[in-house]
This record gives sequence, C-alpha cells and structure tokens, in this order.
Amino acid sequence: MAKRNAVYAQSGGVTSVINASAYGLIKAAQQGDFIDTVYAGLDGINGVLDENLIDLAQEAPAAIEALRYTPAGAFGSCRKKLKDLEKDRAEFQRILDVLAAHDIGYFFYNGGNDSMDTVDKLSRFAAEQGYPLQVIGIPKTIDNDLPVTDNCPGFGSVAKYNTVSMMEGSLDTESMYRDSTKVFVLETMGRHAGWIAASTGLASRSERDGPHLILLPEVPFSQPRFLAAVEDTVRRLGYCAITVSEGTQDAEGRFLSEAGGQDAFGHTQLGGAGVFVQELVKAELGLKVHGAVLDYCQRSGRHLASRVDVEQAVACGRHAVQLAEEGLSGRMVTLQRDNDAPYQWSTGHTDASRIANQEKTLPAEYIRDDGFHITDGFRRYCLPLIQGEDYPPYEDGLPAYRRMKKALAPRKLPAMA
Amino acid sequence: MAKRNAVYAQSGGVTSVINASAYGLIKAAQQGDFIDTVYAGLDGINGVLDENLIDLAQEAPAAIEALRYTPAGAFGSCRKKLKDLEKDRAEFQRILDVLAAHDIGYFFYNGGNDSMDTVDKLSRFAAEQGYPLQVIGIPKTIDNDLPVTDNCPGFGSVAKYNTVSMMEGSLDTESMYRDSTKVFVLETMGRHAGWIAASTGLASRSERDGPHLILLPEVPFSQPRFLAAVEDTVRRLGYCAITVSEGTQDAEGRFLSEAGGQDAFGHTQLGGAGVFVQELVKAELGLKVHGAVLDYCQRSGRHLASRVDVEQAVACGRHAVQLAEEGLSGRMVTLQRDNDAPYQWSTGHTDASRIANQEKTLPAEYIRDDGFHITDGFRRYCLPLIQGEDYPPYEDGLPAYRRMKKALAPRKLPAMA
Repeated sequence: MAKRNAVYAQSGGVTSVINASAYGLIKAAQQGDFIDTVYAGLDGINGVLDENLIDLAQEAPAAIEALRYTPAGAFGSCRKKLKDLEKDRAEFQRILDVLAAHDIGYFFYNGGNDSMDTVDKLSRFAAEQGYPLQVIGIPKTIDNDLPVTDNCPGFGSVAKYNTVSMMEGSLDTESMYRDSTKVFVLETMGRHAGWIAASTGLASRSERDGPHLILLPEVPFSQPRFLAAVEDTVRRLGYCAITVSEGTQDAEGRFLSEAGGQDAFGHTQLGGAGVFVQELVKAELGLKVHGAVLDYCQRSGRHLASRVDVEQAVACGRHAVQLAEEGLSGRMVTLQRDNDAPYQWSTGHTDASRIANQEKTLPAEYIRDDGFHITDGFRRYCLPLIQGEDYPPYEDGLPAYRRMKKALAPRKLPAMA
Repeated sequence: MAKRNAVYAQSGGVTSVINASAYGLIKAAQQGDFIDTVYAGLDGINGVLDENLIDLAQEAPAAIEALRYTPAGAFGSCRKKLKDLEKDRAEFQRILDVLAAHDIGYFFYNGGNDSMDTVDKLSRFAAEQGYPLQVIGIPKTIDNDLPVTDNCPGFGSVAKYNTVSMMEGSLDTESMYRDSTKVFVLETMGRHAGWIAASTGLASRSERDGPHLILLPEVPFSQPRFLAAVEDTVRRLGYCAITVSEGTQDAEGRFLSEAGGQDAFGHTQLGGAGVFVQELVKAELGLKVHGAVLDYCQRSGRHLASRVDVEQAVACGRHAVQLAEEGLSGRMVTLQRDNDAPYQWSTGHTDASRIANQEKTLPAEYIRDDGFHITDGFRRYCLPLIQGEDYPPYEDGLPAYRRMKKALAPRKLPAMA
C-alpha cells in the first residue's frame, strides 16, 4: 500500500493527557510503514479548514517526547462545531479539498461527543465523494461521559487531582475548625455528569475523611435536606467538607448558579455552584466557610496525573493508528475493562455514531441511597483509574513542559471563501 | 541538667510543611538528652489552656514519620489570640499552671506574627513569675511576611504549587483561545502582602508564558490601566493569564473583593478578588473568562511541595530544640540566606519581639515599574525557594497522609474557670 499522509487534530476542552494520545499516535505512525508525514491541525479542525497544518517532521524529537507529559492542547484545540452536513456541505467539502491537496488519507480526531459526530459525518461524506479517507476518533474528556467506552482518557487524572485536593482541603479544615472555618466547599467540573465530583468520594476511606457530602448533577438539589446534612456533619465531626459539581441542579432543573452567557454550542456557561453553596451555608447556618474552584487547573493539572490514565491515553493514540492500518473508518477507539481487581484493560473500538452527541451520566447504582455520596460499586469502578503517579520531569523547580514549534506546511490552496 | 518535658503547639493558618517542623522538633528532642516527654497542644494554645495535651509517646513511630509529608495541622491549629497581658493576666497564669502541672520547661510555638507576640510575652511572664521556662518560636506562614527571617517555611511550597497551577492554567487557555476562553484568572492567598501572587511570576520564562499580569496588594489597582493591559496582551498573544492576590486594593484601600455587587442572599459578594476580576473583564471587554481560586488547596497542597521548603521546615523544628538546649527563650528560629546562586542557607535566631505583629510586604525593587509583574531581583530571591520535589508516598493511588491518634495525657488540674 502506498504511503499517505495523516492529520491529527484536538477538539474540545483539553486535558492533562490529550497530548499523551498525540504522543502515542505519532510514535505508532513513525514505527509503522503506511503513514508518511503526520500533520497536526492548528487549533483543531480550524487548522484543516484554514489549511494551517503543523508539520510534525519539523518538531524536535525532544518536543515530541515532551508531549507525553505536557498538559493542555499542544497544537491548539477548538470549540468549532461543523455546520449541519444535511444543510451546508461547504465545510465538509473544504476539509476534503485540504486533505486532498496534501495527500492525506488518515484523519485522527481527538475529542468528545461532538467530535465523534464529526468523525462519523466526515467518514460518510468522504465515502460519498469517493475520496479515500479513514477517519478515526480518539476519546478524550475529563467528563468521562462517553458511552460504550468503559472510561475516557483525561478522567483518571482529573479524578486523582480533585481527590487529592479534597483530601488536602479537608485536612486543612479539620486542623482549623475549633476556632475558624467549619465548612470547606470544593467545586468540580462536570457540566452534565457527576463522574468528576463522585470521584472525590474516593478520599473518604473512613467516616471522618472528607468529602462528607457530594452534590451531583444526577441528584436534584434540596436545600433543606442539604443544610440538615451539613449541620449533622458539623455536629458529629466539628467540620464538613463538601464537593459540589458545577452541574448540580435543583428539582426544576436550574443550575445552582448560572453565571455568564452561552458558549458556541449554546450551553450555559457555568462556574459558581461552589460560591452558591458557600453563601448558602454562611447565610443559613452561620458557619465560617471557605471554598476552592480549581477550574482549568484540574483538567490541566498534569503534575498530578494518574499513571493509568497516561498509559491509556498513549494506548488510545497508538490504537487509532492500528485501526487506520486495518482499513477502518468512522470508528472511535474505546477502553475496555477486562477485570476489576486486579484491574486489567485493553483497547477496542466502536462506531463513532454510537458516541456522537450521547452523554453517559452516573448510574443510580453508583450513588448512595441518600444521594450525598458514592457506593462501593463506584469505588470499584473508579479506584483503578487513579492508580500510579507519572510525574513530569522538572527543570529549575518547575515542570519541563514544552511548546511545539508549530511550523506550518506550505499552503496549496486559496483561503476558504 | 534534669530532663524536663516540652510542649509543641501549632498556630494560625496551616501549611503544607508545618508538620515537617513538628517532625524535625520531635526527632531532635528524641535524639537529645534534655527533653523527656514531648506533648502537643490539641488545637494549638487551646490545648494548653484546656489541659488537652497530646502525649506523643503514644503515637506510632510511623505516624511520627508521616508528619514529614502530611499537610495541614496534625495536632490542630488555632486562631486564638491571647488577651492583652497588661490587662488580663489570667490566661498567661493558666498556661504556667498547666505547664507546671506537667513539669514542662520548654514551650515551642509554631506560627506567624501573632504567635511570636505570644512567644515574647509568655517568655517574659514566666521570668517575672520565677517559673523556669524557655519559649521558642518556629516560623510558619505561607504569606512569607515575617521580618528578619529571609523566608518562612510554608512559602516555598505554596509558591511552587501556585506557579505550577498558573503554568497549567495558562497552557490550557493558550490551547483554547481561538474559539473559547481568552482570559484566565488565578486568585492567590496573601491578604496583606504580595509574596504568593508575585511567586507565580516565576512561571513567565518568556513573554508568551503566563502570568502576563500580576495584581499585587502593594500596587493600588487602577481599573483603566488594568483593562488596557489585558486588551494589549490579548491583542499581542491571543489570550491573557492573570494572577490576582486576594489582598489587592484600589487607590482608596478597598479590597477588590469588597468592590463587587451583592449576591443572591444580599451579602457583599464573597467571591473575592478573582471573581471581581473575572466579572470586570467579561463586562468591560466582552471576553470569555475562566478563573480558579485554589483557596486551602494551595496552602495544604503537600503533593507538590518544594523540597527546599520541606528541608527548611524540618531544620527550623530541629534548630528550635537546639536553642532550648542552649538555654535561650523569647527567640524565634530564622532562615538565613548565605548565598544566592548556588543557594545556600542556614538557620539562625532572633528576638521574637522583633517579629511580633510586624508584616513584611513586597519591597519596591521586586515589583516591575509598571506594577504588573516581578523583577529579576525577585526571581533571584524566590527561585531557590521552589527548588526540588518532595513527593509524599502513595497508597492505592492516594497520598499516604496520616492522622495522629491524639491520646491525651491525664489531666492534673481542674478546668479553667
């Protein structure tokens, strides 16, 4: 088979390990014999539409190695949702034109639900047009909300980071409650699913350990029940550590706090559930409260990644190359759990259309009956995903994260109309 | 010299390494031959007033070892300020009564400015009363605002944690700005001094690296100048990462946190300086903003401690025992900088009265002329303090932090009136 080129692009909110998937993919492509040049889209799919293709052959080998431990999107990510294929084929046609101009036969898209919609549609569009293209999706989301796959690269690390942060914030509050702060609130990401917030429950190895309460998007928020639970915890232990998901909603489906406008997808911009809970506890219970909102620091907190997560992210990148070699298209790499304890996993694949625009929320059997904590079933699911540390190298006291050179391949087409 | 007992107590906001000072002190006391039992005050000075003395001989050796890497206050800290000695001698007398009942000849107080006031007064009061007591202060504050000492245990680790968090949050924003968030705001602790906020400037190794702007308590906040600087940065780089100290004030001395509106409960917006800056940028510049408030997670973030900081904290605890053995009282251990590069340091000591109730703010030569960043002088000062990593051991994916048993010595006195 004649060698053809490949393009890799990152999409959606970044993670601590999305670049580790890029690393696995680039390494596998270099080791194989069917891919010639690997390009990366500058700022995700934008780079394809704009013909801004980063030529990875021009990157220093050390920069490629650094992808394994550098967080966030090394090539730039995007929040670009392509126009509906049924209504406007121009964007999809433009993508094929750019790919054809650079003899690109493999398109690897590293993202979440929306991105798998693109994988599915682009694969079908290319086939309709008779352009030989294999489109492979690589999962990536801290939210862990993709169906089919047992878990998503990015989740294990955000879970580990938030769980350790809860341990530390809770120990801090436990030290101080006699004279000072009695309630600590940690707000986690997770717009529609409670996986991240739930993961912090791993810090509770005994009744004394925080978090004592977890507020999940899957459980409608009841102010009286919540306040009673806080009071009870403070009465028993002297203090209370609370995790609240940014996606927590009341019985009417209103987010605890709706700050700001809407993003490109029409989602309400969140952030503020933590402040809401802090203010509520202060106003209604008169207790001194502190709160942390880790925000982007949690999803790019590579200094405290899960080794399992890093290894899975690399493996997903590698497996995508293998799927391409096998001639597949419109597929997403999955992670399969082969055994719980000891944890054993492998990579698989599924139709991207089964992932597209789906959201897997926390199942009821992972939520404690009172709605305020996790079950042993969730522990069995989640604990393997945070195992092991994978520290980045440090130089002069700080992580040796690296930027890519991002040299662009010469353009061959006029700009898109 | 006949052996006498010692008491150690923690005071004020906790840190990642205050227990490392306890570790150094306990080890030195065990290795010496003039201290018999070491007690720890439960919840700081409260434990002395209430005669709640934790008997450290009853702790497992592994628990003592774990103090070196367990964050927050293992024996409980306090926000208790003793009554004015000139007006009310009852509290000081009670302390001496409890110490005498347990044959305690050495009082070690691990805290900040307020605590050194107590060290000074208790030392003088005991001398006046003819009770043989040596009172030694061990410095501890993430704020790094104690005079005389070159730096304070706790600062190096909070500096490293915030600096890495800024690197990671800034890389995240750099990945996303094309379609999404253009401004990232990190709020740091430091109510009266800008040391912590300034430390994040170490992340800026090039003009492209965040933080691009740092807001310090030492520089009056000017809204037009700040907004112009944000706009300019976004124009040049596409995004802007900002550190704001919680202690930043306007020209009239009002905290930014007090400048916001009111929340849903009719209270002045608690959110703080970070939320204020986020809302301002969103409202005035119309840019998409994200922000992190690490809160207690920064000061108890032992998972990312500075090795230099841990070593200095241990050394300060050890040196306190040495000062006691030398017969000193009313002194605080200090850290001295013997050389900048290579960094060399040693422990010394000073009169606690020189520390009491003083605050060392960031000197002008550490602040860039425009007020929005640090100077090379600050880099030379701060960079040595974040050198080296000192990871806690992990068990089953999480740090092996340990709680103490906290068995109390039998009481010998009636409760305080």
